[in-house]
Amino acid sequence: MSELDIYKQQGFGNRSGFGNKPALVIVDFVNGFNDPTAFGGGNIPEAIAQTAILLAACRKHGVPVAYTRVVYADDGSDHGVFCLKAPSLKNLTETSPLSQVVPELEPQRGEYILRKTQPSAFFGTNFTNWLTSNGIDTLLVTGCTTSGCVRATVIDSMSSNFRTIVVKDGVGDRALGPHEANLFDMEQKYADLMTTAEIVAHLEKSSKPVRTAAKR
Amino acid sequence: MSELDIYKQQGFGNRSGFGNKPALVIVDFVNGFNDPTAFGGGNIPEAIAQTAILLAACRKHGVPVAYTRVVYADDGSDHGVFCLKAPSLKNLTETSPLSQVVPELEPQRGEYILRKTQPSAFFGTNFTNWLTSNGIDTLLVTGCTTSGCVRATVIDSMSSNFRTIVVKDGVGDRALGPHEANLFDMEQKYADLMTTAEIVAHLEKSSKPVRTAAKR
Amino acid sequence: MSELDIYKQQGFGNRSGFGNKPALVIVDFVNGFNDPTAFGGGNIPEAIAQTAILLAACRKHGVPVAYTRVVYADDGSDHGVFCLKAPSLKNLTETSPLSQVVPELEPQRGEYILRKTQPSAFFGTNFTNWLTSNGIDTLLVTGCTTSGCVRATVIDSMSSNFRTIVVKDGVGDRALGPHEANLFDMEQKYADLMTTAEIVAHLEKSSKPVRTAAKR
Amino acid sequence: MSELDIYKQQGFGNRSGFGNKPALVIVDFVNGFNDPTAFGGGNIPEAIAQTAILLAACRKHGVPVAYTRVVYADDGSDHGVFCLKAPSLKNLTETSPLSQVVPELEPQRGEYILRKTQPSAFFGTNFTNWLTSNGIDTLLVTGCTTSGCVRATVIDSMSSNFRTIVVKDGVGDRALGPHEANLFDMEQKYADLMTTAEIVAHLEKSSKPVRTAAKR
Repeated sequence: MSELDIYKQQGFGNRSGFGNKPALVIVDFVNGFNDPTAFGGGNIPEAIAQTAILLAACRKHGVPVAYTRVVYADDGSDHGVFCLKAPSLKNLTETSPLSQVVPELEPQRGEYILRKTQPSAFFGTNFTNWLTSNGIDTLLVTGCTTSGCVRATVIDSMSSNFRTIVVKDGVGDRALGPHEANLFDMEQKYADLMTTAEIVAHLEKSSKPVRTAAKR
Repeated sequence: MSELDIYKQQGFGNRSGFGNKPALVIVDFVNGFNDPTAFGGGNIPEAIAQTAILLAACRKHGVPVAYTRVVYADDGSDHGVFCLKAPSLKNLTETSPLSQVVPELEPQRGEYILRKTQPSAFFGTNFTNWLTSNGIDTLLVTGCTTSGCVRATVIDSMSSNFRTIVVKDGVGDRALGPHEANLFDMEQKYADLMTTAEIVAHLEKSSKPVRTAAKR
Repeated sequence: MSELDIYKQQGFGNRSGFGNKPALVIVDFVNGFNDPTAFGGGNIPEAIAQTAILLAACRKHGVPVAYTRVVYADDGSDHGVFCLKAPSLKNLTETSPLSQVVPELEPQRGEYILRKTQPSAFFGTNFTNWLTSNGIDTLLVTGCTTSGCVRATVIDSMSSNFRTIVVKDGVGDRALGPHEANLFDMEQKYADLMTTAEIVAHLEKSSKPVRTAAKR
Repeated sequence: MSELDIYKQQGFGNRSGFGNKPALVIVDFVNGFNDPTAFGGGNIPEAIAQTAILLAACRKHGVPVAYTRVVYADDGSDHGVFCLKAPSLKNLTETSPLSQVVPELEPQRGEYILRKTQPSAFFGTNFTNWLTSNGIDTLLVTGCTTSGCVRATVIDSMSSNFRTIVVKDGVGDRALGPHEANLFDMEQKYADLMTTAEIVAHLEKSSKPVRTAAKR
């Protein structure tokens, strides 16, 4: 029996669907993660290009947008276990070029910038209450890495009861094996996978997005 | 360049080490996850057997022990997105045999039982404050599935700044591809991997465990 | 200058208003808090009577309802600092009559029962994600004590960006000084105060409640 | 029966005690809260003066120090319900003089600065994991206002199972009625009250502070 068959037989892999009010979160698409000599590589450049298309559509249709940046204190006062596992994270500080959102996705005034020190966009941040404040029921996730901060964000998004959609071609990773493995895990258990084109089409169908899939 | 080389070159994969005061969490080793016709299969039985050895050592050395169970309300009042992705989770209720800790790991009086509805042992629970209350700095993680609730628990443990150790032979999964892929991700970014034998030896060395590895 | 004048001059005491989709939370109206020889007394019986009226209206208009109970483990495995400050809390266990919802407010099937060990209904629970799952933007708070678990719940509700309404005659306390002092603090900084009659009238005006007050 | 008698009879008002490893948090002692034309007044200046004494002692004895600042985005992207209740909070931005720590308590390199948008130092921040990272079991709380962000921080500190000590003369409020009422509530249910002099004496007794009071 294939792995996919095992999951299917045990009742995983259903769709949670697209709700009524989505937001877009762009996870860690900062210069350092688009630089193979820092934390980048793999298919991250292509994922940024797709995210630029989705970002334009979200702005057009009034979908709220949030960006995450990894930001540690210059003086190391907030370094923790993550910096033991990956000490080079300490280079991501407020003013470091490595920690600025990539120029292709330059944030606009009023879009929400989240600073974080841990993998998930939800951990130790006000992201949940920003989503509540905006009446969001569905979170579209792009960014990098698929096997790192995207995966962590997706688990917390689902756990917070937001219908969660991983933008399949809008997430990237420095290495393709973990990228694929994590897409599999997320689709089976936490999120639906949709392409940029499918989501743009969904947003186009109505300026007020409509519920399509699973009922709850 | 191999995937491992990419991670090494970018500064991942260091050890966070063993602190001074560990606790053990046993994630979702309940009957339903030890039954291939429910959520089980793969190498889960072997992982339970190893966890029984580690549990005995933890009890001997006074290491606090916590267990997680997935428990949903009988009347469905707490069903959410996770139950859309995997509707069979709804069968895990307070009195269902599927949701009782496996007999090999029967909890003792005074050990902590966590009820949860989401993947991570930390999400929507009092686990962090139980760890604080016990002065814990290091979390040993066994349980299942490696690619599901173990991974989610490990991310939150590391994010909470507990040195996190995945018991390599004490975690199991219904399918071995995701098991291996998630061990790779966790070792590179979030946790150290140690075998049951290595941890038992470490606990034996001193009734008061001593710090061995990385400095902070 | 009176205390109220100081708050007014500094810009506090505005209304946050009633949103589009309210839920009701009934905090700790369990037998032990309606018994002056346990944790009760003061104006708690009157607040329970008013809450019964509001509960009936919420059920009629489809407003989701949650109840909190303080529940500690029989074996003390989850006792913490709160039990040092008030050791008699340890008597509130799953099966203790003290910890059952009062008969006047008997929960119905499908209403959400939250077990908690800390003052706030949000701390260490899945309350936020239950609210998200129901698309809630406004939380109506009744229960006891005003100066304890109600106040703690109200701070977290506001912090989570739910418009928060304290039901002025639906909250009670064992002692009236703290009751009044905490109503003052909550109205100035965190929540609007409304009477049961005002809220019932608001719900009556429309089966789909309409936004009345402050814009955001 | 007096209010104090009611609390005593019901088992409240015990001491949780001083643990082995304290940290100090200084809540919102920023210029805007030391200015009666902004958010200040009352006994806040005296509380700052006492906190300066305690801060010096903490630095001398190696007690980790954290400061909170209320910081909202310049573009309003993170405004929420708190800004509806008190719109003047919006003036507290990263570079506003109102939002800088008062000169008497100038942070030193390596001390932890927490930016927050909600009352509690714990809400939407990494404060819990900073405390974990430092092995803290006891939190000393100074700052303002007693009836606002101090109270909210104290509830979360106790809920997180840190032994919590409110520095009685190191917390201040714009109005003395709420100041006194909240000291009463906190002492009865959440925290011990100690003066600056008592805490300094406790720290002096040993460079490695020793446990004094309640056992758990």
